[in-house]
Amino acid sequence: MGKENIIVGRNPVTEALRSGREIDKLMVSSEEGSMKKILALAKERRIPVMKVEKSAIDRIAEGKAHQGVAAYVSAYAYAELEDIFRIAEERGEDPFIIILDNLEDPHNLGAIMRTAECAGAHGVIIPKRRACGLTEVVAKASAGAIEYMPCVKVTNIAQTIEELKERGIWVAACDMGGQEYYKANLKGKLAVVIGSEGFGISRLVKEKCDFVVSMPMVGRITSLNASNAAAVIIYEVRKQRDGN
Amino acid sequence: MGKENIIVGRNPVTEALRSGREIDKLMVSSEEGSMKKILALAKERRIPVMKVEKSAIDRIAEGKAHQGVAAYVSAYAYAELEDIFRIAEERGEDPFIIILDNLEDPHNLGAIMRTAECAGAHGVIIPKRRACGLTEVVAKASAGAIEYMPCVKVTNIAQTIEELKERGIWVAACDMGGQEYYKANLKGKLAVVIGSEGFGISRLVKEKCDFVVSMPMVGRITSLNASNAAAVIIYEVRKQRDGN
Repeated sequence: MGKENIIVGRNPVTEALRSGREIDKLMVSSEEGSMKKILALAKERRIPVMKVEKSAIDRIAEGKAHQGVAAYVSAYAYAELEDIFRIAEERGEDPFIIILDNLEDPHNLGAIMRTAECAGAHGVIIPKRRACGLTEVVAKASAGAIEYMPCVKVTNIAQTIEELKERGIWVAACDMGGQEYYKANLKGKLAVVIGSEGFGISRLVKEKCDFVVSMPMVGRITSLNASNAAAVIIYEVRKQRDGN
Repeated sequence: MGKENIIVGRNPVTEALRSGREIDKLMVSSEEGSMKKILALAKERRIPVMKVEKSAIDRIAEGKAHQGVAAYVSAYAYAELEDIFRIAEERGEDPFIIILDNLEDPHNLGAIMRTAECAGAHGVIIPKRRACGLTEVVAKASAGAIEYMPCVKVTNIAQTIEELKERGIWVAACDMGGQEYYKANLKGKLAVVIGSEGFGISRLVKEKCDFVVSMPMVGRITSLNASNAAAVIIYEVRKQRDGN
């Protein structure tokens, strides 16, 4: 994450919290004195707070006086779920959504936003906690797609999947043990779930999905890089939508 | 590139050059005195030499005394073109080769080697000059595929394509303006060429290819990340080879 996305010091962080500016998370090494106000504001805005050693904040503050607090600020704006549905409707298309379950690598997130834009998807959904947010590294890796591809941050991916299903979206998990991806019917209203780099799709999320699609694995390595897996499935959806 | 892959100082570099150890390139800030011997050895072994400012070597030497020379050492062994053909033959399969024309990003190279291994390709070909070689970063991004997927380094990609064509391989360029990738016949003996991140496939290389395949681009961004493009085409080949 570029340092332009980090705010340190109690006053600057308080201001950022009050301004309503998008904040991914706080790191704090103290909970005393004026930090109490900061923690209350963070709680109110439901911003995740990580308690860390002072040395961890020293590292990211890069010499600046941080007074025991750092805020990771979003460089880019997030969209709302409604934006995705509106865009699909405006284009007269069935919604096509990419859900990223705890993706951690900003290069992967950027590459997936780029591929999603190239293939005509309508939006990307990421979780609020633990996952990578919209940083400068993501922006660069997206080759500009971050400006076009709506990215929605949700509190609970499993819950959001429930909501999508209620709205008539079919939800496909991209994971092991499913049907070959090109044999699945991926036309119509669809969301595709891609798992995290290390752990794949979490059990709870996978259980919510309507079906599982898999890439054949014929080598001695048994999983693809997350953005590569996403690219294969995203382009299969594009192909089927084009009537092929 | 991890520092474990950099050797600095005139004696250590001379030893590395004499040992026959795989060296990707040299960076030198002087051509005087004992550097002449180093330059002669590099020339003899056809190792690319970059002339740079002393400050550039200071940066990569990270405090070590470098005496104006640094060698980028390959962390992993390269294969020969014959190895690829042999492996395909041993498996009783038509050769399936990925050619990377000046790929620069080690994450992309690693991800492509991983996808190539997962999809059952027989080898990857990269150029000797300018491109990313087999570093620790590539190894990590490959998730172990670097140990299985043969990677061949060639002097001239266009010449190698000529050689492959003489051996009955069809060579597909993955670039703009071609046939939709899923409508092309990708069965049989095949090599797929993927371009560099910034510039795509060089003109000379593209002219040598038998045909061009493209991914439909329906968004406002008109090209995919190199490893994402590679994943889409590599899995289309896998699919067609499986009779689908």
